[in-house]
Amino acid sequence: MTGNPPISGTTRLYVVLGDPVTQVQSPALMNPLFARLGVDAVLVPVHARPAHLERIVGGLKCVGNVDGIFVTVPHKAAVRELADRCGPMVDIAGSANALRREADGCWYAENFDGLGFVTGLVGAGHDPAGRHVALVGAGGAGSAIAAALLAAGVRTLSVSDVDSARLDGLRARLDAHWPNRTVTSTEPRLDGVDIVVNATPLGLNPEDPLPFPPAALPADCVVADIIMKPRETRLLREAAALGHRVHYGIDMLEGQVDLYRAFFGLA
Amino acid sequence: MTGNPPISGTTRLYVVLGDPVTQVQSPALMNPLFARLGVDAVLVPVHARPAHLERIVGGLKCVGNVDGIFVTVPHKAAVRELADRCGPMVDIAGSANALRREADGCWYAENFDGLGFVTGLVGAGHDPAGRHVALVGAGGAGSAIAAALLAAGVRTLSVSDVDSARLDGLRARLDAHWPNRTVTSTEPRLDGVDIVVNATPLGLNPEDPLPFPPAALPADCVVADIIMKPRETRLLREAAALGHRVHYGIDMLEGQVDLYRAFFGLA
Repeated sequence: MTGNPPISGTTRLYVVLGDPVTQVQSPALMNPLFARLGVDAVLVPVHARPAHLERIVGGLKCVGNVDGIFVTVPHKAAVRELADRCGPMVDIAGSANALRREADGCWYAENFDGLGFVTGLVGAGHDPAGRHVALVGAGGAGSAIAAALLAAGVRTLSVSDVDSARLDGLRARLDAHWPNRTVTSTEPRLDGVDIVVNATPLGLNPEDPLPFPPAALPADCVVADIIMKPRETRLLREAAALGHRVHYGIDMLEGQVDLYRAFFGLA
Repeated sequence: MTGNPPISGTTRLYVVLGDPVTQVQSPALMNPLFARLGVDAVLVPVHARPAHLERIVGGLKCVGNVDGIFVTVPHKAAVRELADRCGPMVDIAGSANALRREADGCWYAENFDGLGFVTGLVGAGHDPAGRHVALVGAGGAGSAIAAALLAAGVRTLSVSDVDSARLDGLRARLDAHWPNRTVTSTEPRLDGVDIVVNATPLGLNPEDPLPFPPAALPADCVVADIIMKPRETRLLREAAALGHRVHYGIDMLEGQVDLYRAFFGLA
């Protein structure tokens, strides 16, 4: 091989939509998967500014050989309105990150952020089933993770966020599917938790304050972060120094590969 | 390399639009060129049914990292209306086969079928400058080839087509740029020609009649076909058997690679 893509007129297309799009990791994850499976398909980045999102998605949905659309920042909420049907995680999280063409030609949206996170957590030996879990941050990613943790059978889920209106909205959506399994608070509640998850953006910048004090955690608590860059956030570094097992953000993305494989029906 | 495409979030996009699209050869031509030049770009097929063409092109024009659109059957005429500006060959041929994003954000269309054909002809040692050339077929490809032959300085151009209205239209467009250089007729005029070109679809199927009788050609006449599949048409086989030098359809496509490189400003 010379490094050029094995692309011909029969190649099926997958795209990832973002603004910006230069940072996306999904081509590096999915294209080797297509090659490994012998699937004649390729995933390419598509730079879609918010003002053009509807027009671009409208065009892509008509393209005969586009089978899937991945969605990243800032389009995860907006793209929900452009799907013909939405899966349960989309309704709960209020956002979607993958769309596929169905047999009837409709486009179906689902959100794999939460399931990917839980899959990564289980794969690392930290199955949340039956455990007490604290989730800090109730935004798009936090909402998806909350739903996936409940679907995975956590014993209790405590969700905190500084925005109490956002917290109340998520609580109502979660209670509709898993009644009375979630408690919410504006400050993190860390007493007795087995697993704590940072789903806030705090840690993206080195000078960010900590989302919660690791010193307040029970001794055997697992500390997970969903921030991918830097791989080792200040939270994870300080938690590890205190003897906690830590779980990195990149696992959430890697945990999604097999989910995408099933979602898109790849051989 | 494992054979998977070296595609990341920074990769620029080129697409080829067709219906069907499975037969296109441009990915196999352009992707190795991108790799050779070290250009972080990929060309992918886009299946666009005629009813969806405007919507798909409208979306693609908004995509921030789409730099070029190639166009094949049956969209070459329709896509002209979707460009913001058209090059001279588009006006003469009445069709376009390549669009690029200009510095001001507009989309500019050009037609390289004719220039590609002439480039291939020159490359094979059959420079048409100063020669008597007969062109059989005045459709989309024939029109583009007629203009390129005149631009390349043929001494006389004789164009034939069974559709005399189509012939008159082409003659008028050619005369506007190259006055009184073209003669037209509904039957091919083969006496005294140095080069004859089949630009009709006759030869795509093995049972097609010949577009003109090779036995009527002068002894040293070059016989060119623009049909790519089959590579050796009945016309070329019979002409070669009569001792004529022949020129294959694939050369028209290969002749376009350097033209595209210049058009798209590839390093």
